[in-house]
Amino acid sequence: MARSSKRRGPLRHPAATEIDLLDVLHALSDPTRITIVRTLLADPERACGTFPVEVAPSTLSHHFKVLREAGVIHQREEANRRLTTLRQAELENRFPGVLTSIVDAYVAQQG
Amino acid sequence: MARSSKRRGPLRHPAATEIDLLDVLHALSDPTRITIVRTLLADPERACGTFPVEVAPSTLSHHFKVLREAGVIHQREEANRRLTTLRQAELENRFPGVLTSIVDAYVAQQG
Repeated sequence: MARSSKRRGPLRHPAATEIDLLDVLHALSDPTRITIVRTLLADPERACGTFPVEVAPSTLSHHFKVLREAGVIHQREEANRRLTTLRQAELENRFPGVLTSIVDAYVAQQG
Repeated sequence: MARSSKRRGPLRHPAATEIDLLDVLHALSDPTRITIVRTLLADPERACGTFPVEVAPSTLSHHFKVLREAGVIHQREEANRRLTTLRQAELENRFPGVLTSIVDAYVAQQG
């Protein structure tokens, strides 16, 4: 078995109805993770290495895992890439106005 | 010096312009803390022991400290009570729609 497939294992995504608001807030409360979300709002699907964040690959993997397990992002493997999308419609349906008001406020704060 | 005044020290509150959105999100990402905020939205000023949460007093003090240092609540001493208010107007001014959309979503989620 290749090391990469051993290490990665299947990607877990909660169902939309299982997404917990407090997990989402925790996931968004970190500068790297909210930057990932902000980037995805402007650009719907990106490969993992293409986000404007400066952290080590293992740290970035951890941040993607927190976002994925909170239900904020969806990730899928395609060839040798892992592609990430925001679960924006599901989040908006479940928690109206939360994601957009938070990202708007973050953009305003950061200038 | 009385033990209580030694232990408590002065209460620190960030200025409105110093409130950081990510600290606010972290502060709200806990069930006890968001219950405190939800209670204050309905009832503007309460004494510390009157919130509908079931945690030990030392744990509750920690949760108030996290909320206070994030800029979510204001606390003042009056006689033998510590009175807590929500910094709702300042938060709404700085992060429009964030607090209310989060609390509305939490109320809807909890039913």
